[in-house]
Amino acid sequence: MSLIVQKFGGTSVKDAERLRNVASIVTEAYKKGNDVVVVVSAQGDTTDDLIEKAAEITANPSQREMDMLLASGEQISASLLAMCIQDMGFPAVSLTGWQAGFLTSSSHTMARIRRVTPDRIRRELDQKKIVVVCGFQGLSRYEDITTLGRGGSDTSAVAIAASLNADLCQIFTDVEGVFTADPRKVPNAIKLKEISYDEMLELATLGAQVLNNRSVEMAKKYNIELEVLSSYTRVPGTIVKENVKMEKMLISGVAKDTDVARLSITCVPDRPGMVFKLFSKLAAKKINVDVILQSVGRHNTKDIAFTVAKGKGAEAKEICEQFAASVGAESVDYNDTVAKVSIVGAGMESHAGVAAKMFEALYDKQINIRMIATSEIKVSVIIDVDDADKAVKAIHEKFFPETVD
Amino acid sequence: MSLIVQKFGGTSVKDAERLRNVASIVTEAYKKGNDVVVVVSAQGDTTDDLIEKAAEITANPSQREMDMLLASGEQISASLLAMCIQDMGFPAVSLTGWQAGFLTSSSHTMARIRRVTPDRIRRELDQKKIVVVCGFQGLSRYEDITTLGRGGSDTSAVAIAASLNADLCQIFTDVEGVFTADPRKVPNAIKLKEISYDEMLELATLGAQVLNNRSVEMAKKYNIELEVLSSYTRVPGTIVKENVKMEKMLISGVAKDTDVARLSITCVPDRPGMVFKLFSKLAAKKINVDVILQSVGRHNTKDIAFTVAKGKGAEAKEICEQFAASVGAESVDYNDTVAKVSIVGAGMESHAGVAAKMFEALYDKQINIRMIATSEIKVSVIIDVDDADKAVKAIHEKFFPETVD
Repeated sequence: MSLIVQKFGGTSVKDAERLRNVASIVTEAYKKGNDVVVVVSAQGDTTDDLIEKAAEITANPSQREMDMLLASGEQISASLLAMCIQDMGFPAVSLTGWQAGFLTSSSHTMARIRRVTPDRIRRELDQKKIVVVCGFQGLSRYEDITTLGRGGSDTSAVAIAASLNADLCQIFTDVEGVFTADPRKVPNAIKLKEISYDEMLELATLGAQVLNNRSVEMAKKYNIELEVLSSYTRVPGTIVKENVKMEKMLISGVAKDTDVARLSITCVPDRPGMVFKLFSKLAAKKINVDVILQSVGRHNTKDIAFTVAKGKGAEAKEICEQFAASVGAESVDYNDTVAKVSIVGAGMESHAGVAAKMFEALYDKQINIRMIATSEIKVSVIIDVDDADKAVKAIHEKFFPETVD
Repeated sequence: MSLIVQKFGGTSVKDAERLRNVASIVTEAYKKGNDVVVVVSAQGDTTDDLIEKAAEITANPSQREMDMLLASGEQISASLLAMCIQDMGFPAVSLTGWQAGFLTSSSHTMARIRRVTPDRIRRELDQKKIVVVCGFQGLSRYEDITTLGRGGSDTSAVAIAASLNADLCQIFTDVEGVFTADPRKVPNAIKLKEISYDEMLELATLGAQVLNNRSVEMAKKYNIELEVLSSYTRVPGTIVKENVKMEKMLISGVAKDTDVARLSITCVPDRPGMVFKLFSKLAAKKINVDVILQSVGRHNTKDIAFTVAKGKGAEAKEICEQFAASVGAESVDYNDTVAKVSIVGAGMESHAGVAAKMFEALYDKQINIRMIATSEIKVSVIIDVDDADKAVKAIHEKFFPETVD
């Protein structure tokens, strides 16, 4: 007998039919003698509908009230799923975030889980119940309802798995696992049997969007085995764990991220503290900077370029312009028609020439590279957004030449 | 400076426009220097939509899960109203039932308030916030979310008013107050300035449906002054309190209730314990019996007739048939095309002939009376449902002959 945590996203629970499908997956695991905890997101477009309702009221809703509003979404899906499981003849109970013991920070709309106290969950499991938990939400120490931000349900699931010392945490989505590239764009993308936490982390950060980043970090920290699989088919997915057998592949995937804006400041005086000044200002505004590049400019100056999410582009540009004026830099350039394409793979640590192979693929297609950044297991390039899909395909073909059905 | 509790029903908060209207009523009271606690129901059809969602899943949802589901409704309306008040420049905070300190029994979907511990509400009021509370819901001692059943938001409002020792509890509806008859049916119905708890109780029970019954009982118990008024107009409503000045009116209203089914059992053996046996069986099934009539039948038998709500009609009929068979009664008759029309008034205690005047009005219109029941301040008759509106009008004209605009 094992303890399994299963997480289902909004599409998987969007209506009565999909809920019945989820209930049958859950009860199958239960019938095999497992203890089952289910974590659900809000149904389909519920969250967007609620955001729309708030938008009709005010352009600047308080985040505390937004959390109160949005948390109703999972309360609906969780109770409906519990009813559905009961209707199939199995005992079930739904729990809100606070009932399930989620204590979080008080940063509303982007709270962090501080602690899970799963006493109530354990009590219900002891009574042989299937426990359906509202993902994405918790309670602050002020007894206010908080949410973890988009994708937070993955993190909820991993946190419960960690607190209960679960044997497996299954994340059900609308794809069958982690692929070497987006299978909708690259027809011969290959589904991976296994992938390491680090590779998965790089892929998540790079816009593969299969798993929420924080959830993978947490799984790595507590060594929780994850399985990414589809709620539509009943085939094994991709296992995410610490030690992965190399499948004779140099890289585990090619990912694309189009939510990128590139900023560059030219001719910044080459004095100490320049970079610190700029990036501390960005950090103060909570702007996450991704790729950073510094190059030597003319006459004792340097050029600084970096990327941010598009939503933060305008704000970042303003900061850059103030900075440029204050230090006497030449100009600020802003471009949000770019994309980041990356390859990820633990294999590249031990194999030379992986980056070169990627650049060759881009050169073959005459795609211009604007920025390059590398880490131990990743190579990213910033290119024109119009070239992005072509680039992913070309790189994938270079690394996975054989066609796989 | 006073402490005012204001309660708004589903229609009053149904969309952004109505929410803004409510916010302006609330902030007007706040600007006058009052402490304001607002109790809201779920928006418009939310509760029905949620019930519909559950119905798509199962015909027999667990009541515990129904409460979990339905409680999301007020969470949405309360947070939206708090945002709306904030958008108008006033401090506000929304609280769920459990955050507001509502502890209830664990009879899901029809829980009773056991205690309100308004510490959190007090703390927010001390910070000069307008506190928006989710009506209709609370928490059981098992830490499960409960609901009070339809109309429960009125009770929530009165309970808060009692626990905070409020100066006034305003119940906003879509009518301007309590009328001597339904103003949509009887054009010269008169709005009452004041009415006593007891009269209001009789009117609520009798289907006037302005205020939830339990809420009036609670207001009477804790001596909370209620005001029933419209959220559409800004005119004074009807005050409900203990001692009411007689306005030279014999009766305070004529009410109609069409949710009535009439059962009669003929030729029940005239032995002790017969009536007890029947009504204890009905009570065991939680069937509320309203008007009860027992008359002498033929040959040492008696006839028993009573009314129940239509929804309980079929079940009550079954019990009657079993009872009739077991004691050897003659027959069971069931009729749900009846209505109850009643007059209510503390004045009738000291004035003879009030009932006679009512019967005269019915006789004038040739309306046949099937059952009669009286109390100190009420006379009810059961008549054919088709005659109900005509009867209300005739009785109203008899007691309030002058036309009032």
